Amino acid sequence: MADKDRSPVTVIGLGLMGHALAAAFLKGGHPTTVWNRSAGKVDELVAQGALRAATPAEAVTAAELIVVCVSDNDVLHAVLDPVTDRLAGRVVANLTSGSSDQARANADWARRAGFDYLDGAIMTVPAGVGAEDSVFFYAGPERAYARHAQTLRLLGGGTTHLGEDHGLAPLYDVALLGMMWGTLNSFLHGAALLETADVKASEFLPWAVKWVDAVKLFATDYAGQIDAGDGAYPARDATLEVHFGALAHLLHESRSQGVDAELPRFVHTLMERAIARGLGGHSYAAMTELFRGPEHSSPKQP
Amino acid sequence: MADKDRSPVTVIGLGLMGHALAAAFLKGGHPTTVWNRSAGKVDELVAQGALRAATPAEAVTAAELIVVCVSDNDVLHAVLDPVTDRLAGRVVANLTSGSSDQARANADWARRAGFDYLDGAIMTVPAGVGAEDSVFFYAGPERAYARHAQTLRLLGGGTTHLGEDHGLAPLYDVALLGMMWGTLNSFLHGAALLETADVKASEFLPWAVKWVDAVKLFATDYAGQIDAGDGAYPARDATLEVHFGALAHLLHESRSQGVDAELPRFVHTLMERAIARGLGGHSYAAMTELFRGPEHSSPKQP
Ligand SMILES: NC(=O)c1ccc[n+]([C@@H]2O[C@H](COP(=O)([O-])OP(=O)(O)OC[C@H]3O[C@@H](n4cnc5c(N)ncnc54)[C@H](OP(=O)(O)O)[C@@H]3O)[C@@H](O)[C@H]2O)c1
Ligand SMILES: NC(=O)c1ccc[n+]([C@@H]2O[C@H](COP(=O)([O-])OP(=O)(O)OC[C@H]3O[C@@H](n4cnc5c(N)ncnc54)[C@H](OP(=O)(O)O)[C@@H]3O)[C@@H](O)[C@H]2O)c1
Repeated sequence: MADKDRSPVTVIGLGLMGHALAAAFLKGGHPTTVWNRSAGKVDELVAQGALRAATPAEAVTAAELIVVCVSDNDVLHAVLDPVTDRLAGRVVANLTSGSSDQARANADWARRAGFDYLDGAIMTVPAGVGAEDSVFFYAGPERAYARHAQTLRLLGGGTTHLGEDHGLAPLYDVALLGMMWGTLNSFLHGAALLETADVKASEFLPWAVKWVDAVKLFATDYAGQIDAGDGAYPARDATLEVHFGALAHLLHESRSQGVDAELPRFVHTLMERAIARGLGGHSYAAMTELFRGPEHSSPKQP
Repeated sequence: MADKDRSPVTVIGLGLMGHALAAAFLKGGHPTTVWNRSAGKVDELVAQGALRAATPAEAVTAAELIVVCVSDNDVLHAVLDPVTDRLAGRVVANLTSGSSDQARANADWARRAGFDYLDGAIMTVPAGVGAEDSVFFYAGPERAYARHAQTLRLLGGGTTHLGEDHGLAPLYDVALLGMMWGTLNSFLHGAALLETADVKASEFLPWAVKWVDAVKLFATDYAGQIDAGDGAYPARDATLEVHFGALAHLLHESRSQGVDAELPRFVHTLMERAIARGLGGHSYAAMTELFRGPEHSSPKQP
């Protein structure tokens, strides 16, 4: 490989996301070989200077770094299993969404076949590829990541290596997506409540945004309480019992204003379970005990 | 009233929060009269310069501005109903948590009795009283608010008048609290997932914080889509169907890592209901249709 900055890259899978990835490598001046099941999607990139691979075998031998972005890991195996022997000595960076189990199984496959495997997660949409603040996570061998970090960073300024455990990329992925749904559902529910008083969502928005910044500070405190690992969860701000009392207002308000009460009712069952487990005198961070699942032990009584 | 900056204030209710409110007025140099059911809580404030009222009647006649912060609105009425005739011409700012129905009923009571009523909501904890970024909401007559805004702002730099509809303060209150629980639950759930791979909550935290900033941008887009009011909810980023597909990963991951799957399963039922209502081709903002409750009509098909 001549110039580190201009090393060849292969992109397999040119769906909405794969297309954007290949375009970013091309824009960054890398010789970019592309393969896609449906040949039609290749043409536009070839017109932009990409190199067409006729087969997956041709694609994987065109570069040391092979970026894969297909629907799911079954598709990845359907495409790459037949050419496994040609992967030896290369780096496969898999940006296909999947589970931590799949990521770790893929890593075993790579070890057996003698190639480096990075499991990735894309925390943006196709339009965000290449942006300074777009986050791409990678997990797997640090050395393989480091060798291609400069190239991979073309996809997003927030490109980050999470660690050697391949399961980390899918885990961070779903943990953050879960936060997106949790935050958006409660925002949209709040907007629906305020709509009953003729408040526009865009009027609620700046308060929601400002409030979420306050919630970040609560989360910061709670992260420390969780990591302390002593099950103390000191209620410096408010106990779970106090939260539970305030939640009754949200539930009542939803019902009396004719807004869907499923969401607050669900949060109610969660807090109720936590309080039934004796967590009512702790801070909200104690809800962690609930989310950890059944096999974990309860914390100290306050 | 002599000097606007030093007008007398009465605080009724010296629980955790009422104590902090009275202390902030005292610190701001206002003659501050206090009353509390249990006399013991009054002593510390009297030592700091507060004036002791022997009865609610004495308390309400000591100032034009009467701030009330008791457990709930039933307590407020138990204390103030017997002295309603002494409230005429005064301003009652009620910082007790309650519902929009209660706030509007209190406003009717005030109209009949000839006093000004402001319903308020406190978006901080006692330790945050007096801080520059602490938000206190008020709703009710603009004129009464304006007359005492400078005094009320001593309680928090983010003191804001939401509008004349008294229901606004409790509605903003519960809408924002709902966002707190939605965001915290999903953060704590994500932390539990990452814990299975030995990631500390404080390692997850900075990514969660950064990601929530991205989610704010999604919410900004969605607020505009809701306010457009045309039921279009264009899926510029991802359709609900795509979100639903990604959610399967979170659900699978939670189950396979032994983490509580109740939270993702609930979000699953929500999205499923939205998709069953024909919203699958829209952006996530279309979930609003679900949260609005049953009596609202469905949007246009995409
Ligand atoms: N789009 C986003 O915003 C986004 C964000 C984060 C992560 N992701 C992840 O990125 C991955 C790709 O998403 P996308 O939006 O690009 O999806 P997409 O537009 O549906 O593209 C799917 C890709 O997979 C290929 N494929 C599907 N089945 C195949 C098969 N049996 N054999 C060979 N190739 C097959 C498709 O080839 P054909 O063209 O021949 O159908 C296409 O290249 C997914 O795992 C997704 O979760 C996407
Ligand atoms: N603490 C917070 O972080 C916070 C934040 C936002 C909003 N709030 C709201 O502020 C209000 C007060 O909260 P808090 O934390 O101060 O609660 P608290 O410490 O429990 O104080 C309750 C107050 O209500 C009085 N009270 C209760 N029952 C009474 C009765 N039957 N007759 C007369 N007085 C009675 C208590 O008097 P005694 O001293 O005689 O019991 C005390 O002054 C609540 O509506 C709460 O939701 C609190």
